[in-house]
Amino acid sequence: MRIGIDVMGGDHAPDAIIRGCVDALDLLADDDTLVLVGNRDDIEELLGDAGVSDARLEVVHAPDVIDMHETPVEAVRTKTDSSMVVMSRMGSVKAGDAQCDAVLSAGNTGACVSAATMNMKRLRGVHRPGIAVTMPLFSGPVVLCDAGANPQPRPQHLWQYALMAEVFANRALGIEEPRVAVMNIGSEEAKGTGLVKATSDMLRRTPGINYVGYIEGREFFEGAADVVVTDGFTGNTVLKVSEGFARSFFKAMAEAVFEHDAELGLALQPVMQSFFSKKDYHELGGAPLLGVNGLCMIAHGSSEARTIRSAIRTCKELVIAHVNDAIIDRLAETRHVEQPEREPA
Amino acid sequence: MRIGIDVMGGDHAPDAIIRGCVDALDLLADDDTLVLVGNRDDIEELLGDAGVSDARLEVVHAPDVIDMHETPVEAVRTKTDSSMVVMSRMGSVKAGDAQCDAVLSAGNTGACVSAATMNMKRLRGVHRPGIAVTMPLFSGPVVLCDAGANPQPRPQHLWQYALMAEVFANRALGIEEPRVAVMNIGSEEAKGTGLVKATSDMLRRTPGINYVGYIEGREFFEGAADVVVTDGFTGNTVLKVSEGFARSFFKAMAEAVFEHDAELGLALQPVMQSFFSKKDYHELGGAPLLGVNGLCMIAHGSSEARTIRSAIRTCKELVIAHVNDAIIDRLAETRHVEQPEREPA
Repeated sequence: MRIGIDVMGGDHAPDAIIRGCVDALDLLADDDTLVLVGNRDDIEELLGDAGVSDARLEVVHAPDVIDMHETPVEAVRTKTDSSMVVMSRMGSVKAGDAQCDAVLSAGNTGACVSAATMNMKRLRGVHRPGIAVTMPLFSGPVVLCDAGANPQPRPQHLWQYALMAEVFANRALGIEEPRVAVMNIGSEEAKGTGLVKATSDMLRRTPGINYVGYIEGREFFEGAADVVVTDGFTGNTVLKVSEGFARSFFKAMAEAVFEHDAELGLALQPVMQSFFSKKDYHELGGAPLLGVNGLCMIAHGSSEARTIRSAIRTCKELVIAHVNDAIIDRLAETRHVEQPEREPA
Repeated sequence: MRIGIDVMGGDHAPDAIIRGCVDALDLLADDDTLVLVGNRDDIEELLGDAGVSDARLEVVHAPDVIDMHETPVEAVRTKTDSSMVVMSRMGSVKAGDAQCDAVLSAGNTGACVSAATMNMKRLRGVHRPGIAVTMPLFSGPVVLCDAGANPQPRPQHLWQYALMAEVFANRALGIEEPRVAVMNIGSEEAKGTGLVKATSDMLRRTPGINYVGYIEGREFFEGAADVVVTDGFTGNTVLKVSEGFARSFFKAMAEAVFEHDAELGLALQPVMQSFFSKKDYHELGGAPLLGVNGLCMIAHGSSEARTIRSAIRTCKELVIAHVNDAIIDRLAETRHVEQPEREPA
């Protein structure tokens, strides 16, 4: 198996990304290869400093970098020699010998979505790719799709996210008949926007799906569904609000405890550390962009070495799970549910 | 001052609402009146059971109730004798002697928005009312508007939410030159939907506003802004996700601590109780529907007696703060920023 990694993408790139790749070597089989895409001199210097020489690490030079603040489509079109664009080309089945079974980036998410969509192309029947983040909630894992690839989707897009994420939850996470819900601002049928109503209507007409209806933000955390679909704007906001809330909550709580009783605070520290280690996004490493013809994993911008190591492990698992074949079949068998409509430009 | 209360609205109505009113008597001046709107027999029985007889409690009979699951506009149009609709009529300046300075409901939020908009009418110049929730974040209070009145706003609506919430933060919360931000899925100018870009553009052209640009869910919790505007769908989701997250987080954490060391768990309990009491939505009681001609406070559906008591105190503070006069002035002086556009139907 070959996994291509954009070592220049991410807040702590390239150091943390390359260290993550080195740390992942123990997860690899003899015939696995990590293809490090980025500035060759930087990569070789970092590997040299670390005293690492391993035939399973391959370097592909890419002189340019897309940074976190660039306009995605523009950056992907103009920076064709950037590590991210070169990586995405290697994720395409047309890449020949250079082809990777999976590609991975912690860089500019919007640019990664654009690069993968442009160069890897979409799976047969897919309108728009969507990011499926597995959130490690206290009630169990919940797959949220879309988490930011498509901020203004049509009902057809959301409906496909439901199907693709359902397949993902089943194949990759082993959830039997995943309960699928649509995020809404009330659980009553009358509530919500035209988008959620039309999506819900399509899901009700879809055979073989365990559709449980609308879900609210509160129920989301109580484990009322395994797969939750929403537009990329709301999905991304939910993700970041949860992260921001957790961080601020923990900080404020720790302060309150220490202020009250420093000894109690110290006694609590190991419990909290073990508690958080189980609910940490670093554990999963990244989220697949479902709907592209290949496997593109998007890691958190603030990925550390351990995040990248986990993401590489997740890549291996997803390649073996053959999620894409199952998505193609699922979309083909439910094609009749969709309203006849022209593809968005 | 007269405050009208829909005692039939809310998950724990009418008991908790009426008890909240009774508990609020000590907050009232001699010439203040709480007008309890609902089923007269129920109200008088509950007051009798509690042994309460106070001239500052007035009862207005309303035989009908709008429940939490009804379709808002439909319910408001047909149930004209419901406690909520009767309450909203009393909030109107046209109500004459029956008129209340503020009205309050913990019932169906959508119906309350409809009833207030229909019967109290909008303030001069306001396109659409918006709910302004003051979230008691660890970094300090943040006003989120809109929290669910208008799930699919136009840029003009969001722009007015910014101005109205700015006035509210200043007048009611005493924040000098509140920092105003637009919720987005990235802080870069290129990110986001057409809605947020158009709103941001209008805010940049608005004189006298302390507009700080886009804010993400993460920064939201770090106190990067005092006022955050967003569409009602996202706003409501942020609110409920935060609530759901806090609840599940606390539950899971408590379990982890008790599992590790029951004594540690017991030692922690009083600290946590005091910690949460400061960050509790019950403390504020409710959120004003900004933009209606009067004061309509919307309380949480799961309001308890203490929530209603707090909401009554907040009503009193807001009436004294003359937020509406300041909103009218602020909209008039920034009128030129707006694109000429017809009112939505």
